[in-house]
Amino acid sequence: MKILVLNPNTSDMVTEKIKQAVLKVAAQDVDVVVEKIEHGPEVLESYYDEALATPYTIKKVKEANEKGFDAVIIAAFCDPGIEALKEISDIPVYGTEECAFSAALLLGNKFSILTEKKHKESVKLQHVRKLGLESRCSGVRALGMGVVEIGEDEQKVKQRGIELSRRMIEEDNAEVIIMGCASMAGYSQELEKTLGVPILDPVTVTYKMVEGLTALGVKHSKIGLFAKPAEQKWI
Amino acid sequence: MKILVLNPNTSDMVTEKIKQAVLKVAAQDVDVVVEKIEHGPEVLESYYDEALATPYTIKKVKEANEKGFDAVIIAAFCDPGIEALKEISDIPVYGTEECAFSAALLLGNKFSILTEKKHKESVKLQHVRKLGLESRCSGVRALGMGVVEIGEDEQKVKQRGIELSRRMIEEDNAEVIIMGCASMAGYSQELEKTLGVPILDPVTVTYKMVEGLTALGVKHSKIGLFAKPAEQKWI
Amino acid sequence: MKILVLNPNTSDMVTEKIKQAVLKVAAQDVDVVVEKIEHGPEVLESYYDEALATPYTIKKVKEANEKGFDAVIIAAFCDPGIEALKEISDIPVYGTEECAFSAALLLGNKFSILTEKKHKESVKLQHVRKLGLESRCSGVRALGMGVVEIGEDEQKVKQRGIELSRRMIEEDNAEVIIMGCASMAGYSQELEKTLGVPILDPVTVTYKMVEGLTALGVKHSKIGLFAKPAEQKWI
Amino acid sequence: MKILVLNPNTSDMVTEKIKQAVLKVAAQDVDVVVEKIEHGPEVLESYYDEALATPYTIKKVKEANEKGFDAVIIAAFCDPGIEALKEISDIPVYGTEECAFSAALLLGNKFSILTEKKHKESVKLQHVRKLGLESRCSGVRALGMGVVEIGEDEQKVKQRGIELSRRMIEEDNAEVIIMGCASMAGYSQELEKTLGVPILDPVTVTYKMVEGLTALGVKHSKIGLFAKPAEQKWI
Amino acid sequence: MKILVLNPNTSDMVTEKIKQAVLKVAAQDVDVVVEKIEHGPEVLESYYDEALATPYTIKKVKEANEKGFDAVIIAAFCDPGIEALKEISDIPVYGTEECAFSAALLLGNKFSILTEKKHKESVKLQHVRKLGLESRCSGVRALGMGVVEIGEDEQKVKQRGIELSRRMIEEDNAEVIIMGCASMAGYSQELEKTLGVPILDPVTVTYKMVEGLTALGVKHSKIGLFAKPAEQKWI
Amino acid sequence: MKILVLNPNTSDMVTEKIKQAVLKVAAQDVDVVVEKIEHGPEVLESYYDEALATPYTIKKVKEANEKGFDAVIIAAFCDPGIEALKEISDIPVYGTEECAFSAALLLGNKFSILTEKKHKESVKLQHVRKLGLESRCSGVRALGMGVVEIGEDEQKVKQRGIELSRRMIEEDNAEVIIMGCASMAGYSQELEKTLGVPILDPVTVTYKMVEGLTALGVKHSKIGLFAKPAEQKWI
Repeated sequence: MKILVLNPNTSDMVTEKIKQAVLKVAAQDVDVVVEKIEHGPEVLESYYDEALATPYTIKKVKEANEKGFDAVIIAAFCDPGIEALKEISDIPVYGTEECAFSAALLLGNKFSILTEKKHKESVKLQHVRKLGLESRCSGVRALGMGVVEIGEDEQKVKQRGIELSRRMIEEDNAEVIIMGCASMAGYSQELEKTLGVPILDPVTVTYKMVEGLTALGVKHSKIGLFAKPAEQKWI
Repeated sequence: MKILVLNPNTSDMVTEKIKQAVLKVAAQDVDVVVEKIEHGPEVLESYYDEALATPYTIKKVKEANEKGFDAVIIAAFCDPGIEALKEISDIPVYGTEECAFSAALLLGNKFSILTEKKHKESVKLQHVRKLGLESRCSGVRALGMGVVEIGEDEQKVKQRGIELSRRMIEEDNAEVIIMGCASMAGYSQELEKTLGVPILDPVTVTYKMVEGLTALGVKHSKIGLFAKPAEQKWI
Repeated sequence: MKILVLNPNTSDMVTEKIKQAVLKVAAQDVDVVVEKIEHGPEVLESYYDEALATPYTIKKVKEANEKGFDAVIIAAFCDPGIEALKEISDIPVYGTEECAFSAALLLGNKFSILTEKKHKESVKLQHVRKLGLESRCSGVRALGMGVVEIGEDEQKVKQRGIELSRRMIEEDNAEVIIMGCASMAGYSQELEKTLGVPILDPVTVTYKMVEGLTALGVKHSKIGLFAKPAEQKWI
Repeated sequence: MKILVLNPNTSDMVTEKIKQAVLKVAAQDVDVVVEKIEHGPEVLESYYDEALATPYTIKKVKEANEKGFDAVIIAAFCDPGIEALKEISDIPVYGTEECAFSAALLLGNKFSILTEKKHKESVKLQHVRKLGLESRCSGVRALGMGVVEIGEDEQKVKQRGIELSRRMIEEDNAEVIIMGCASMAGYSQELEKTLGVPILDPVTVTYKMVEGLTALGVKHSKIGLFAKPAEQKWI
Repeated sequence: MKILVLNPNTSDMVTEKIKQAVLKVAAQDVDVVVEKIEHGPEVLESYYDEALATPYTIKKVKEANEKGFDAVIIAAFCDPGIEALKEISDIPVYGTEECAFSAALLLGNKFSILTEKKHKESVKLQHVRKLGLESRCSGVRALGMGVVEIGEDEQKVKQRGIELSRRMIEEDNAEVIIMGCASMAGYSQELEKTLGVPILDPVTVTYKMVEGLTALGVKHSKIGLFAKPAEQKWI
Repeated sequence: MKILVLNPNTSDMVTEKIKQAVLKVAAQDVDVVVEKIEHGPEVLESYYDEALATPYTIKKVKEANEKGFDAVIIAAFCDPGIEALKEISDIPVYGTEECAFSAALLLGNKFSILTEKKHKESVKLQHVRKLGLESRCSGVRALGMGVVEIGEDEQKVKQRGIELSRRMIEEDNAEVIIMGCASMAGYSQELEKTLGVPILDPVTVTYKMVEGLTALGVKHSKIGLFAKPAEQKWI
């Protein structure tokens, strides 16, 4: 089995974090490749960044289909271009946001999302609504930090993360917390010990779910939302 | 007042249909420009098509900001890249899908959407859910025709449109019907007469709402979902 | 085109505020008439007030149909008797609440409503639910002032409005704020500057949307929720 | 204990049906008065009819407060003016629609509503949404008959009622059926035998629930949705 | 008429509280039996406790069917095993939670639930969601006390209950408060006086609703959610 | 890693089917034990059956905690007693229904459930609502066969399954179909080929997801819905 974990931005730091997290948990008989896209923004902090990165992500997913991969994971907690990627792919494509939500549903009544900056709270709420999961989400709270800063200032992330998580638990009735940024990868275990609730790291959670589902031959549906695109004339 | 009506695909036929529809209804003192994007697929029939067209749409919206336009309308009934476009724009950007929904809410208990091909039913249902309007939508029914065919075979569209609309009204409790494809522009009036319910043409409905809202100086919010993107490093 | 903006209460102060607000924004070729009902409560602060005012509003809407108006706007942010008015009218009737909601949907992820007194919070929440828009509304907060006081004590409204709006933005994730009372008409621009988010004045927003939709000949559906009432025997 | 069962229309036939139904089931120690309003439409088939009848219903409810009644039931399956009536009343006021819904929730997964004419399907769906009960309602189907005809042509009601109920059960997953018109009072038992599912007669179900709740001294809340109206100046 | 009020735990204190509450309000011509199950946990504070108690509750409900009871009330505010009990019973079975919710819907826009310990907040939110009533519930707040302590320390319950209820009213927009624990039976009247909103005691509210519905012969549906179980082989 | 796959009924046939399905897909380094409960109904076709089986399931889950298992899967597509089992377990417990839903969310816009008998349609709809997934479920359709018959009459299941699945796809907009009965295990691949959409077999899908999540050390939250039960006195 061959799985591509694709970082849909161009940050080496984030790609490295993803790589370390995934390789630590991958089954031995799986051929895991962790890559980033060739061109695009260093990190994705807006729909705009995502829009510009998606054509390069599409290219990578097309190649993964040709190169015999069995599944692709898009490893940024915003699932950029996920519908387009599923459309043009015969092999399954999974986002770390949707997978983290699917896992969280199994672990408690409601989950909350720790995100980067204030405006991302609205973005996450929209994603949750798009996925039809509003009544299982207890809200979103922002660290007030950018993606790069999160990847670099571990101390600040942990301190604010604990503070915000406590409010999510006590005020919002969260039972599960999702680390909503790929650059937080690797912080979840320590927070979990401190807080006593599951803290999900979307990258590894997604990786292991996908490893399992792909072993079964599970694929996404190609008859509706993700139907194969028709050929278009192009100018 | 200067409004850009932007066709986010490269079809001359569709652009022309939009132009005729809009110019017929525009107020005299408004400077309306109808354009298509420079490069991209001829029509948008998938998220994939949209993903590839969006960078070119972004370019046009950025230019519209620089050229002194007061508002931009994205004239394809899938609102491609709409969040990204609102993020990078200081002037208001509106999609014809979201505007048609907002108008339909005022005209009856539930609206149904006439779409192109079967798989688009799922796409539209997802859009409705993303916008939080599920309890006002009575469903989607597909003509089983592509965008180009719809623009060309008027007779077939009308016949099937009437047939499907009758089922929407009788079986689904639709009270308002939205012509869910820009290439249907111009067919709504005749259907309206035959069926006796409002048949909304998203392009003109959007245009007139935007003309009004822009005259008031209404703009979209820039603090949450559509916050201005931060500068990113780019590789 | 001839539009009736109908104040469904008998306050001269409120009618005058509406008149000034509308005339400032109306297109030159539109014949706008701003009127109040002949009898009824000075202001509408309860369903009870609305119930007593509605027969007089009906009378006015019937007359507007006979007098050749093209559309009617009910200019109180509670849309009193709106379903009955749409039923008995062949020309379109719009409420300022429903129209403000429809506009707010286009401008941000969630909107909040600034209302008069505490108990109105429940009333607004019920309206939002009736219209199926719960997942787009970030809540309601009350000034703790009556309609008349709001119309008269501009300073207090502004100060409290800013304070409450800040809480809506920071605590409730509101991105758009609706001034939920016709007597607040005229306060929105200043608040908008201070707060940096769209502050919608329902009367003018509704007026411009209606001006546009009516120019297109858009009418409400008469087959379901707003079907023409059958003649009844009367005792 | 003294309960007023108020028919908010002026039909003697319907009032008589209500009276017979209620008196058959009332506890012996309760003083039940069944009355109709003094002026108004013979039956209520639209929001318009309701709007005209409500001021007369208000009058009756005010009198009931003064005359020492302990509770009022509004016995038309559209709960006309119910919010206004609860506002101006210190004694509890109940509608037969809301009470039938509350009872139906206890008896099966989903309930369906048998209504009069096609357009009423939309009206009922709106009511269900206003009350927040959409996920418990399996739909509405119309007899295609007016209120008076329903009260008079028992045979036709039963035949069509059985036919429609079978479709509600088999196609819509209804487990409970509500006879959605006061003039159907008295038909439920026979249908229940034929169909093998609970067929709720809103008038009697409401009456017995109210008898019970009133004996306990239960009253509606007066702090939010139904707060006491402030005095208004009147012109 | 003969009604069994069944305490699905083995606490004599709670059973006695239920008995006193019910006997005070029962109609004279009703034969009310208040009993507890024969074996099981003293109180039910978890799904685990409920799971162990349910087989004994089933036994009692089966016996009630044989002994000629007309209805059974399960008098613990968690409705333990309620679906199973309705399945195996021909006579109606009602839970005090579901009935309290049904009553609360009639009394205000939203209801809140006062519960025992913090973790029960999630449990109640899940129940509300299961019953499809999320948009009518303004939340749950916990006393931080166990069932037995609640039954014994009246002073503490009242003090904390008042404090929490005030927050429910002011912060959560609750209009009705449900005393969510059978051992709180008897505290509601005093709180109601202090707080000025309806405080529902589920046991008595349920009892009177059931008394009324049973007098009418209302039964639950046996075709779907509560269909009679097929015989099974048993090992 | 040691996983217990627990059949919460006493059917050898079903246990054997589960065993074959799971062993075929288990990773080599996992110690999988497939067992049934010691006493209880042969199959679970009602909440009543589940209620009687749950105490025996609890016993097994407690033992699994003591015997050093790392996770438990409850392998009946009704997740019987799942909340109680999660409460009393420190190791994670997963149901095949909830896991199949979580997987289905990743594969298409909406999923439908193929169930046994007609009345189970309501049961499944309630489960979906309890889990907050209503807007992602396109409905339930029943084979009209019991659990045992489904396990035995492969031909009939396939034929009816194909027929019903076609209706789910065409009429209900299903994109993914869940084989909603453990005794259907093994039928999914053939249906998948015929129908061209993902047909999920809950047992194997759950097994592989759990294998992955457990390898990561993911556990359910113990602070809210699944908090550890307090000790109770027992009579």
